[in-house]
Amino acid sequence: MQRRSLIRQGALVGLLAAGAAPAVHAQAQTRWRLASSFSKTSDLLYGNAEAFARKVGDLSGQRFQIDVHAAGELMSAVDVLDGVKRGAIEACHTSGSFFFGRNEAFAFGAAIPFGMNARQLSAWMSEGNGLRLLRDFYAGFGAINFPCGLAGAQRLGWFVRELRGVGDLRGLKFRVDGLGGRVMERLGGVSQGPAAGGDLRQGFARGAIGAAEGLSPYDDQKAGLPKVARYGYYPAWWSGALQLQLLVNQQAFDALTPEYKAIVEAASASVQTQLVAQYDARNPAALKQITAGGARLQAFPKPVLDAAFRAAMDLGHELDASNPAWKKIHLDYRAFQRDQLAAARVTEAPYDAYLQAAKLR
Amino acid sequence: MQRRSLIRQGALVGLLAAGAAPAVHAQAQTRWRLASSFSKTSDLLYGNAEAFARKVGDLSGQRFQIDVHAAGELMSAVDVLDGVKRGAIEACHTSGSFFFGRNEAFAFGAAIPFGMNARQLSAWMSEGNGLRLLRDFYAGFGAINFPCGLAGAQRLGWFVRELRGVGDLRGLKFRVDGLGGRVMERLGGVSQGPAAGGDLRQGFARGAIGAAEGLSPYDDQKAGLPKVARYGYYPAWWSGALQLQLLVNQQAFDALTPEYKAIVEAASASVQTQLVAQYDARNPAALKQITAGGARLQAFPKPVLDAAFRAAMDLGHELDASNPAWKKIHLDYRAFQRDQLAAARVTEAPYDAYLQAAKLR
Repeated sequence: MQRRSLIRQGALVGLLAAGAAPAVHAQAQTRWRLASSFSKTSDLLYGNAEAFARKVGDLSGQRFQIDVHAAGELMSAVDVLDGVKRGAIEACHTSGSFFFGRNEAFAFGAAIPFGMNARQLSAWMSEGNGLRLLRDFYAGFGAINFPCGLAGAQRLGWFVRELRGVGDLRGLKFRVDGLGGRVMERLGGVSQGPAAGGDLRQGFARGAIGAAEGLSPYDDQKAGLPKVARYGYYPAWWSGALQLQLLVNQQAFDALTPEYKAIVEAASASVQTQLVAQYDARNPAALKQITAGGARLQAFPKPVLDAAFRAAMDLGHELDASNPAWKKIHLDYRAFQRDQLAAARVTEAPYDAYLQAAKLR
Repeated sequence: MQRRSLIRQGALVGLLAAGAAPAVHAQAQTRWRLASSFSKTSDLLYGNAEAFARKVGDLSGQRFQIDVHAAGELMSAVDVLDGVKRGAIEACHTSGSFFFGRNEAFAFGAAIPFGMNARQLSAWMSEGNGLRLLRDFYAGFGAINFPCGLAGAQRLGWFVRELRGVGDLRGLKFRVDGLGGRVMERLGGVSQGPAAGGDLRQGFARGAIGAAEGLSPYDDQKAGLPKVARYGYYPAWWSGALQLQLLVNQQAFDALTPEYKAIVEAASASVQTQLVAQYDARNPAALKQITAGGARLQAFPKPVLDAAFRAAMDLGHELDASNPAWKKIHLDYRAFQRDQLAAARVTEAPYDAYLQAAKLR
């Protein structure tokens, strides 16, 4: 856009006649501001937006620049949605869990208890109806969304005390984002609001919480969580996959050239899978350190998983009845998941199971 | 490159002065020829290269164009590697299994028996040493490689007769690509050369083969394989993930601007995960059709899997001793896989296993 108008004004003609082609790039810029909902402490989540911005610069010959601001720099983590809507910023990088209180359907732009794993979710988003349905939803907030940063079932549940059964959840003060928190409440827990990374350790240390979801073994180890809550439980039934979103002000996006639109899409797609790879590459070493440090990693007792599963299914159906935006996405989401699980039964699942049981040499 | 030189020649100055910016794009083009090793029948594999080329065009404002040719149009499927090396074509889209006879290490650019699944492989390629090691290897063939098209453990083994144990493999004429074929030979089978898609059905029909790896339920159903070989066995131990490669002539790549280099990288990255999503989205319906058509899908008998696993491990170590190029990649590959499996034990694996056993409602 800006480039063309500069050319129309004839401002570049002299430069081009002199053969100074690189100056075309340096002058004809589009510059955006992006607010992240993450702090620099969560280096991979925050870094995902920076990687996206870097990619946009590289793909545009540095003519399209995006300035990334950490949570709190321009606005708080939860204000970025409205910031994008009113055009104060062109874009934000966030998780739906920050806006979950406004509409439960935001959970589909974050994590769903007993939901699809990273690979299934990726297929739903790009080849199923996922992206279309989420775009319909985000359009109501003046934004167009791009899946931008996917993570797997890596969120250990950190507990101060050992969990022997469903009864131990009664009265337990816990922190879990989004829908997972609602499920925990149905099991008798007392929600302590969304997890906020850095202060989790303090919450544990002063006894304000008894359990919390981690972010990843890599982040949790860095934050020292396993030192204050020594029982790490798996699997992360509240978040089989975490899907971050790039939200772009619709008018700002519409104003881009087709080339720049393609660049936003490709840059977000390339960092989408980069995140899960970054976590996968770092988590094994972190897990070794965590267990070497004395933390105990163990499976949730089966009755706890079963109770959580029932509560999650019930909650999903109750929301179908009360929230049309939720229902529209939820029915499609679960149907796709059901098909994926059935197909995995004769493809991925027995493959992975065999290798889990085998001993590579 | 061409763009800058056109500008230097002053050819565009008149156009720019007239404000005809789009003409800059139309005239200042880079155009490449890409030969695919796949036929248009394998619409998703062949289509992956077309999607890559389309993305390159979109990201460059159509100034960088790549013409995609199906196998046989410019050269045969197996000639593309040398075609890239000698610069007859700038790029090819292929699988290492086509060149496996020249060096077993090509298998890492395709599939490894009992190797990493798609997600693990993706982490190894982008965040482990995978890409660097493969680039060292492909450099010996005058090419730089980009992971471009990933598929999962979707390759059913199609058998004319039911497989009751390892003994049934003795003398069985089968077709499996690459290293999987070597393992099958160790189990007593008689290799019939690499699978060639379309003619598999004829091979089965006239009794030339008794078993073959499929490509995917989606492709197999289209090709009518389950009609001629009614037993579909899983899991695909010879190919837990298939990693296709974009190979680019090193000199052609070096001649690109930084912007176009970034575009090649981002375009291949974005179609890399698109392929697995495309298959995941299509396989469930294909599997339903396959079973509705009377084919029987069943698990390989455990003794067959165990014998194949032992043979695959033995073969890997024998190649370590005989092939330095193989060994260099293999040791890193298996170390990464071991770490991934250990981490999955407390993250993804119990999550997936719980959902496989649960009944969504």
